[in-house]
Amino acid sequence: MKIYGSRFHGNPRRVSIFLAEKGIDVPFVEVDLRKGEHRTPEFLRRSPAAQVPVLELGDGTCLVETVAICRYFEELQPLPCLFGRTPLERAQVEMWQRLVEFNLYGPAREHFRHVSPHALPLEPRQIKEWGELNRERMLDGMTLLDRQLARTEFVAGSLYSIADITAFFTLEGLARLEGLEIGIRHPHLQHWYAAVSQRPSAIATRPPAR
Amino acid sequence: MKIYGSRFHGNPRRVSIFLAEKGIDVPFVEVDLRKGEHRTPEFLRRSPAAQVPVLELGDGTCLVETVAICRYFEELQPLPCLFGRTPLERAQVEMWQRLVEFNLYGPAREHFRHVSPHALPLEPRQIKEWGELNRERMLDGMTLLDRQLARTEFVAGSLYSIADITAFFTLEGLARLEGLEIGIRHPHLQHWYAAVSQRPSAIATRPPAR
Repeated sequence: MKIYGSRFHGNPRRVSIFLAEKGIDVPFVEVDLRKGEHRTPEFLRRSPAAQVPVLELGDGTCLVETVAICRYFEELQPLPCLFGRTPLERAQVEMWQRLVEFNLYGPAREHFRHVSPHALPLEPRQIKEWGELNRERMLDGMTLLDRQLARTEFVAGSLYSIADITAFFTLEGLARLEGLEIGIRHPHLQHWYAAVSQRPSAIATRPPAR
Repeated sequence: MKIYGSRFHGNPRRVSIFLAEKGIDVPFVEVDLRKGEHRTPEFLRRSPAAQVPVLELGDGTCLVETVAICRYFEELQPLPCLFGRTPLERAQVEMWQRLVEFNLYGPAREHFRHVSPHALPLEPRQIKEWGELNRERMLDGMTLLDRQLARTEFVAGSLYSIADITAFFTLEGLARLEGLEIGIRHPHLQHWYAAVSQRPSAIATRPPAR
């Protein structure tokens, strides 16, 4: 079993945080996106939409999509539980995982891809107006999360879950890449962020200093 | 238990197809989006991001996000199974459910919202260039699905799943709203579509003729 992608960057980092929480060790194989290594015919056989991460199983079966890969590991090793313990909690984790993806991670990705001069050429063309609209959305997503975290310890309730991983990974990346920090308008989000950013899974997967 | 949203339209229809496949009957309560009924303070207490569908449980607990609501019903009544039967199949269903959402449903929604004069005012402003870019993406998504369906009976493999529901609901909506039809470039997708569009769950949830 191995994972194509970087342990420290982008969506593969979401998987590496997840695996660190589970205490599962899987080798990562670097894929150089700037050199287009994700677009070779060999790689496209593993990943039809040219994405990382890819989880390759021992028999050559490949899984893509971060959350699908994480769910596979949750199925193989349920504890510690990161997708919820009861039917209702599993639905609430999925609900918040999706709310974070669509209201925070997605807008942050679109903002970066369409505004930043440092974005990889992942889009056929940058549309600045779309990028700017997504900055507004991202701030709305932070407000949505702040309101939830006024009531709960973690994003989906009392359990640290994959929804926290998606939110943390987005906010740490944003802060580094865009000079965006969680401000005083979002005190509950600040408080939560201070806690989750000190978890061993966050520290072990932080990009090494150059 | 009740669901806020229309049994026949938009994301709530995804839930109603899912429930029809399961043979579960839940009352739907109409929400008039054109009148802004999803933005009243009362509704926002149920749905913090002003979305439909919302599943309200007997004790007042509310769940949003289509796939989270479907997963809750899968947990309550596992058969017939629509999220996969084994750990690997569950990961593959999640993988394809997400590939369809990000490569077909998402682009179709963005295209419609940013190009169509009939779009509800869901966006602060329409960005035509973004809408047009998503038409290209949607066609790429159809190609991705066509290649998969050359090898498998259903989107995620041998099992009809929530990934088929998301793909079917998107393509039927597209054909109706945009004059987009699955063309001869995508013969496997055409073949699959002809089959799934005749399922009782598709027929029972099709909007009634006016």
